[in-house]
Amino acid sequence: MTENIALTDTVALDEERKALIIIDQTLLPGELKLLYLSTQEEIYQAIRLLRVRGAPAIGVAAAFGIYLASLEINEDTYEGFYNRFTEAKNYLASSRPTAVNLFWALGRMEKIMAGNPGKSPAKLRELLHDEALRIRDEDIQACKSIGEYGLELIKDGDCILTHCNAGRLATVRYGTALAPIHLGRERGMNFKVICDETRPLLQGARLSAFEMSADGVDTTLICDNMASAVMKKGMVNACFVGCDRAASNGDVANKIGTSGLAIVAHYYGIPFYVCAPTSSIDIAIKDGREIVIEERDPREVTDMWYRERMAPAGIKVYNPAFDVTDNKLITAFVTEFGVVRPPYTENFKAIFDNKINNNGK
Amino acid sequence: MTENIALTDTVALDEERKALIIIDQTLLPGELKLLYLSTQEEIYQAIRLLRVRGAPAIGVAAAFGIYLASLEINEDTYEGFYNRFTEAKNYLASSRPTAVNLFWALGRMEKIMAGNPGKSPAKLRELLHDEALRIRDEDIQACKSIGEYGLELIKDGDCILTHCNAGRLATVRYGTALAPIHLGRERGMNFKVICDETRPLLQGARLSAFEMSADGVDTTLICDNMASAVMKKGMVNACFVGCDRAASNGDVANKIGTSGLAIVAHYYGIPFYVCAPTSSIDIAIKDGREIVIEERDPREVTDMWYRERMAPAGIKVYNPAFDVTDNKLITAFVTEFGVVRPPYTENFKAIFDNKINNNGK
Repeated sequence: MTENIALTDTVALDEERKALIIIDQTLLPGELKLLYLSTQEEIYQAIRLLRVRGAPAIGVAAAFGIYLASLEINEDTYEGFYNRFTEAKNYLASSRPTAVNLFWALGRMEKIMAGNPGKSPAKLRELLHDEALRIRDEDIQACKSIGEYGLELIKDGDCILTHCNAGRLATVRYGTALAPIHLGRERGMNFKVICDETRPLLQGARLSAFEMSADGVDTTLICDNMASAVMKKGMVNACFVGCDRAASNGDVANKIGTSGLAIVAHYYGIPFYVCAPTSSIDIAIKDGREIVIEERDPREVTDMWYRERMAPAGIKVYNPAFDVTDNKLITAFVTEFGVVRPPYTENFKAIFDNKINNNGK
Repeated sequence: MTENIALTDTVALDEERKALIIIDQTLLPGELKLLYLSTQEEIYQAIRLLRVRGAPAIGVAAAFGIYLASLEINEDTYEGFYNRFTEAKNYLASSRPTAVNLFWALGRMEKIMAGNPGKSPAKLRELLHDEALRIRDEDIQACKSIGEYGLELIKDGDCILTHCNAGRLATVRYGTALAPIHLGRERGMNFKVICDETRPLLQGARLSAFEMSADGVDTTLICDNMASAVMKKGMVNACFVGCDRAASNGDVANKIGTSGLAIVAHYYGIPFYVCAPTSSIDIAIKDGREIVIEERDPREVTDMWYRERMAPAGIKVYNPAFDVTDNKLITAFVTEFGVVRPPYTENFKAIFDNKINNNGK
């Protein structure tokens, strides 16, 4: 099992079999199974049923998915091909209506179509293929850069506490919050990692603990409410978490439990790092109050993983999927362009200006 | 179900049937079942298997248990009766080796034996019976007083967040942390209560949410890691928790997760109250560093409630049963003698001096 995952990206393209390869994350940690998906329907279902999850991984899966869908299109004209492409794109886009990276990746693929009018279907397929690989490569590179910059913040032997799964299983390779750990492993470093289980969906226990163990990392699982105890004992050198969406002032929406963890880390004086590609930083919104928090099915809390229902019948449940962490609790952001420290409004702007200038060169 | 629990103490003596009556807490919240236990063996097993739990409830169950055991003793002499009493006492004391109230209650029953040399077995049984009822009545009265003093800290309509179960199911009646809510209900007040589920053993979801709903309280269940989110939304007026053991400086050992909750409440400026009979305050220890924290079976985290194992095989687990909350995070203690505010070292001493003086009168 360990060997398999070491050899495999979370999302990959099998050029020979013309298939998307994913690790079926609904079976982890009990079983490591690779799925080979060729049809639009299979790829749609895999995204919808969380067999592949994590915003960056979903984006790359969708890019490969729409390329594979293009191989199924039997049309001779550009217009005919484009129409069928759009149908397939809309179908894939409906698999998870809230995943921003899904739309972003499909949007990039559509730009290839829109930017190459009159080209033959064969040429278009080739361009779509290359763009999908580019999206994948950019994800790998962004994660690797986050890993590089993250490594500057810790030293060999440190113990890192992480929440949810912002690891390789949420991206193609490396992950975001866990990128420094994986990259450190490649270089022979030995970190300890404490994964909190991350109720209600247990991504910490099922996914982060799995991928850390599989990479040979000294991994310890705790319940979410034990973070204060391990910090008080001096067991934690730093916290690394991912980011679903950051506001321009540095407020961060991330998996429920992130803000409580940040408050506890702040109390004990432990650095709290948010790892995020700049695509997750939304400079159009001023602060965290503008971020709408999704509330999810109460049964995730009361029934989902249990042998039997663990709460009284009819009990009210509040089940927000995310929370917002105040910017003052965040020691720094780790992006693919470097470590960003407060004040975030100014320093995010500097990174974005620099990014635009570099792209313009 | 609701009516039954309203009519029943968590631990009671059936004088006619010569039996200890308990609610089988291992079946909650799915089933409310009363158990009638007459033999030493049945009572030992009920304590050992957590059918009755919560330090005060265990103490009262043990007192009733040793009285019922005395009814089984066929000896004519004081010495013969005392020897058999001691055997039964030692047997019951071994049911849960860490529960302080168990030894304390059995010790009080033994004082009856030691203090009445030469009395007939019939007379001794009568004295043991009366002492057991006294232990029960004192528990009810202490909890009721905690409820009275706690009610002074909140107003009708407030929303209280509680952790674990320090409710009536942990005592004979009323509870400690939940005593103000139950007492308020008796007086027609309407509080809202948010119960966190309290991983790993889910006492919040299984027990607190159950007893609050059964008492007609507007109850909402959250995961432990959602406390910050509900506090940030302004949904919480105060936190009430129990106490396994407090040091003389006010540091508190309580169910794992208490300290993290206190830190988060402190961050948002929400009052954090610890409800405890003075028997839980250990003025012999200076601060929380002297309190040894029990670590429990990793399978409580990885396997216990799940349909299947939810963590990778062989993963390390850290599973402390309690944590220590710094005294500076605690707004006040609510005891049976009143509300105690900082500085705790001085103010605990005043309460204890007063208690000793009153006992001496």
